[in-house]
Amino acid sequence: MERPLILITNDDGVEAKGINSLISFVEDMADVLVVAPNGPRSGQSSAITVDHPLRIRLEKEKQGLKIYSCSGTPVDCVKLALNKISNVEPDLVLSGINHGLNSSVSVIYSGTMGGAMEGAIHGIPSIGFSLNDYHADADFSNMREVVRTMVANVLSQGLPSGVCLNVNVPKGEIKGVEVCRQARGRWTEEFEKRVDPHNKEYYWLSGYFANDEEHAVDTDEYLLKLGYASVVPTSVDTTDYTMLQELKKWNL
Amino acid sequence: MERPLILITNDDGVEAKGINSLISFVEDMADVLVVAPNGPRSGQSSAITVDHPLRIRLEKEKQGLKIYSCSGTPVDCVKLALNKISNVEPDLVLSGINHGLNSSVSVIYSGTMGGAMEGAIHGIPSIGFSLNDYHADADFSNMREVVRTMVANVLSQGLPSGVCLNVNVPKGEIKGVEVCRQARGRWTEEFEKRVDPHNKEYYWLSGYFANDEEHAVDTDEYLLKLGYASVVPTSVDTTDYTMLQELKKWNL
Repeated sequence: MERPLILITNDDGVEAKGINSLISFVEDMADVLVVAPNGPRSGQSSAITVDHPLRIRLEKEKQGLKIYSCSGTPVDCVKLALNKISNVEPDLVLSGINHGLNSSVSVIYSGTMGGAMEGAIHGIPSIGFSLNDYHADADFSNMREVVRTMVANVLSQGLPSGVCLNVNVPKGEIKGVEVCRQARGRWTEEFEKRVDPHNKEYYWLSGYFANDEEHAVDTDEYLLKLGYASVVPTSVDTTDYTMLQELKKWNL
Repeated sequence: MERPLILITNDDGVEAKGINSLISFVEDMADVLVVAPNGPRSGQSSAITVDHPLRIRLEKEKQGLKIYSCSGTPVDCVKLALNKISNVEPDLVLSGINHGLNSSVSVIYSGTMGGAMEGAIHGIPSIGFSLNDYHADADFSNMREVVRTMVANVLSQGLPSGVCLNVNVPKGEIKGVEVCRQARGRWTEEFEKRVDPHNKEYYWLSGYFANDEEHAVDTDEYLLKLGYASVVPTSVDTTDYTMLQELKKWNL
């Protein structure tokens, strides 16, 4: 194989420690093209920018590494990279490393996973990485081997078109890497009401995660709590095939 | 059954013709609570607002109908409705009617479907509706019977927690309603490059949809082209269970 090309994006912005750790973990394995938001885009899911134009800026260029910032979302970054910035299709799309977990239903809201899903939509093997540490100065060093192992495996074996991987990692020592499914859960009591100096009410998103199946041993939430890294294969086909059969009996 | 409560949101904003058509189609069937963005939020997917506070405003109140506008995304609207605005849990969440299709992979980017998915995450039966007409003055009258039939069916039979319905409808005459799966496809050649008056480049998102399986007769794209309304059961569990078995053989 020629030296592969890896496209990297994230949702914490091009300056974040997580994406710069990710670049440092893989730059000896491939040429690296970074196209990442010019600031934080947490919770952007697969949002695209339809109502205003996008700008990109070359931030850094050296042998085997080019870094662009972009005014859009993680999905915009991947689309611009594939359509306008790169002449060759990347062999792999990586997104992250996110400052904070994207396990269970958080995969739905995650800009990190939005970036990885976009790679998968275009048929490119893609992985999103997240660490269970929300701090700006989080220590990503425990992820080095996990990242390199996952990248080596996916570069050699590929992934089916339309499927990416959602990799979440606990803080500190990692007991192992486990393939599993997305836990059922949801965020709850999600808003804090405040009153502004002009006596008008406003709301801050907050709340906590509720695991709807705390004892299910084959889920990302369970394995992360035990200290394992979780790998969930994530599909861009959202069809529920069980319900599809059931619905055919309805009188529509 | 007592008179049910239906929560309605959309991504085209509270003033859009689509959501006001939807309200008029169902207001004799239920009490209606509308919480919808205060302007267009197309392409917002399941984005949430984490970096600034949200405001809501009561726009209209009459017997059996309350309409709020919200400064956030469709998902923010559903979360605020469930957490702060309504004392009782809605029996049904409706999102739309979108001005434009959300078939195939567009379900991933759609703010309309983001709103419906959020209802499903909270275990409430939810339906997203979209019409194949992107104009502000689109004619939604052909959807009246489809909407009422779907609403009556889902109110009486429910939906499993974590599954919502993605209903797309062609313009004009509807040949029937078909249950089907999401077509594989993607948007391509997605940007138009322009130069601003200061001689700097910028990009507009544009492009066209490419169906990767044009002849697959069991897909939403195929059935919509033939003039049928498509109903795709859509899951918030994004796990790819086929790939999960395959991945367990990998050496991670």
